Amino acid sequence: MNKGGMMLLIFTEDEIRDKVKINEETIHVIEEAFIDLAMKDVQMPPIMQVDIPEHNGGIDIKTAFIPGYEMLALKVSSGFFNNYRLGLPSTGGVVLLINVFNGQPEALLYDNGYLTDIRTATAGALAAKYLANDSCTKVGVIGAGAQARYQLMALKKVKSFTHVYIAGKSNRRLLDFKRMIESDLNVSAIICEDATEVAKHSELIITTTPATSPILQSEWIQQGTHITAIGSDAEHKNELDPYILEQATAYVCDVVAQCEVLGELRTALQAGTIQETKNILELGDIIANKKVVRESEDDITIADLTGTGIQDTKIALYAYQKLTEEK
Amino acid sequence: MNKGGMMLLIFTEDEIRDKVKINEETIHVIEEAFIDLAMKDVQMPPIMQVDIPEHNGGIDIKTAFIPGYEMLALKVSSGFFNNYRLGLPSTGGVVLLINVFNGQPEALLYDNGYLTDIRTATAGALAAKYLANDSCTKVGVIGAGAQARYQLMALKKVKSFTHVYIAGKSNRRLLDFKRMIESDLNVSAIICEDATEVAKHSELIITTTPATSPILQSEWIQQGTHITAIGSDAEHKNELDPYILEQATAYVCDVVAQCEVLGELRTALQAGTIQETKNILELGDIIANKKVVRESEDDITIADLTGTGIQDTKIALYAYQKLTEEK
Repeated sequence: MNKGGMMLLIFTEDEIRDKVKINEETIHVIEEAFIDLAMKDVQMPPIMQVDIPEHNGGIDIKTAFIPGYEMLALKVSSGFFNNYRLGLPSTGGVVLLINVFNGQPEALLYDNGYLTDIRTATAGALAAKYLANDSCTKVGVIGAGAQARYQLMALKKVKSFTHVYIAGKSNRRLLDFKRMIESDLNVSAIICEDATEVAKHSELIITTTPATSPILQSEWIQQGTHITAIGSDAEHKNELDPYILEQATAYVCDVVAQCEVLGELRTALQAGTIQETKNILELGDIIANKKVVRESEDDITIADLTGTGIQDTKIALYAYQKLTEEK
Repeated sequence: MNKGGMMLLIFTEDEIRDKVKINEETIHVIEEAFIDLAMKDVQMPPIMQVDIPEHNGGIDIKTAFIPGYEMLALKVSSGFFNNYRLGLPSTGGVVLLINVFNGQPEALLYDNGYLTDIRTATAGALAAKYLANDSCTKVGVIGAGAQARYQLMALKKVKSFTHVYIAGKSNRRLLDFKRMIESDLNVSAIICEDATEVAKHSELIITTTPATSPILQSEWIQQGTHITAIGSDAEHKNELDPYILEQATAYVCDVVAQCEVLGELRTALQAGTIQETKNILELGDIIANKKVVRESEDDITIADLTGTGIQDTKIALYAYQKLTEEK
């Protein structure tokens, strides 16, 4: 678009969805994001947050500057949980790409949060790739929203699972969810009574809820389980009983400094089930330095993913490249 | 603009410049911003900053949510000081207006930093209005960039000054500056040897430089002077000798929490010329609560302005209103 001397490329959600998919390429892009975070002198300021409780919503701003790239992304994401009353999706967002040589905005990716969904799902797949048992075929999912579906789509690229055990609040949503993943992923989906039953059957559990108190209890977790906790990304959110973090052989953060404020680590520190943060591993360090975390098939592992600005910059740069490469 | 289901109003710098000027209206808008900051339950998160020293630049993100308004602004501003080599202005920026009921982006004000210039200049005028002697006719300016000119344009709306004493690094720029303000503002502009001479002649001094060490020394400051320090808005910047803050009868911040990190207060705290921050006045408090700061014509007063997200939200809402009111 060029309007009165302004040069800013603008891309819509449809255009972005057309070019950016959950596949080996985007998993690789996010894998590189974690490696860069561990290895490069990345600048990733604390997340900027505005809470708007009067409208049951909030806005997050994330960014990261990775040396060696021409642009950085400034990612705005919103979650407004009364939006269903307005016929609007709860989550939204937009990404601004800014040139790091001169500060000029280069592109606006009007993705309504789609790129956030992709970079979150692919990070979940990476957590499973590096932490879960190779052999796992039975996956549990708590929460039946769009992100749960994206998580399974990404996981399918790294794990050959055959059965999905699901639990959630709305029966109608669970039925839709079952139908969609059975047709998309060629798996059997089993709707469970509750999270206890999900945990009993699953070798890998993904939690993708906006819960503010634990939805998984430590006594339910089977030996050998890997858990990826996606839901908690704000100071009031919490999905895991803090004793699960104590019980786990390995607890891994995307970024410790974020997880201790926004993730499962926050309640575990409060409960004293984790006493100090200095030895906690980060996913990027594990990937970059080929650290082996799982030492036995019986180990319980946890990945606490709060979502990082470097994932946003990487996926936006990838989207920009795909969107402009034919021009 | 409506592109593939996307509804986002986009306004260019030219359109914005046409509707938003330095005048009584914009001064009033920014006065309200300071009052809201003092009186309302405003949410203004810490400034998000990315420094890009390899390209002599950086990006700032500011925001504020003011209860009662339909939108908030997310303001991105950039300063890249090698841009002159590329034939680009050093500063730039863009403002995103986001609906606070549903999180949807409503408008993009592609202003290249113009609204930041306006809200900064009008804040300077307000500092002078509430802190400087009413009678002052002689104004000093250190730095001869665009913001210095905007400061004088805004100041002219609140003070009937007749003489401007200027100093700066580039003679050519000073000559241009003199020509412009003499023709725009009907004042006499006197180019001084240095800042010492400026201080000797001035009753009100505005500093608008990117200095990283003091450009005004305490022994130069005349009794009765008011100083508005605009330049320091980053952790490495500093325009005032910290002893000026000790010498002053009143030192006023836009926001204490910002000035102690980004403003003149930072070096004064380091030097020990200010020992504690708890009794420091904020400009909004003075305006809202009609506090009289200047008790005598001989008082020395200082306003330390780092720039606030609430100014950005207010000026963006005003611009949006002006830009859409005829449609």
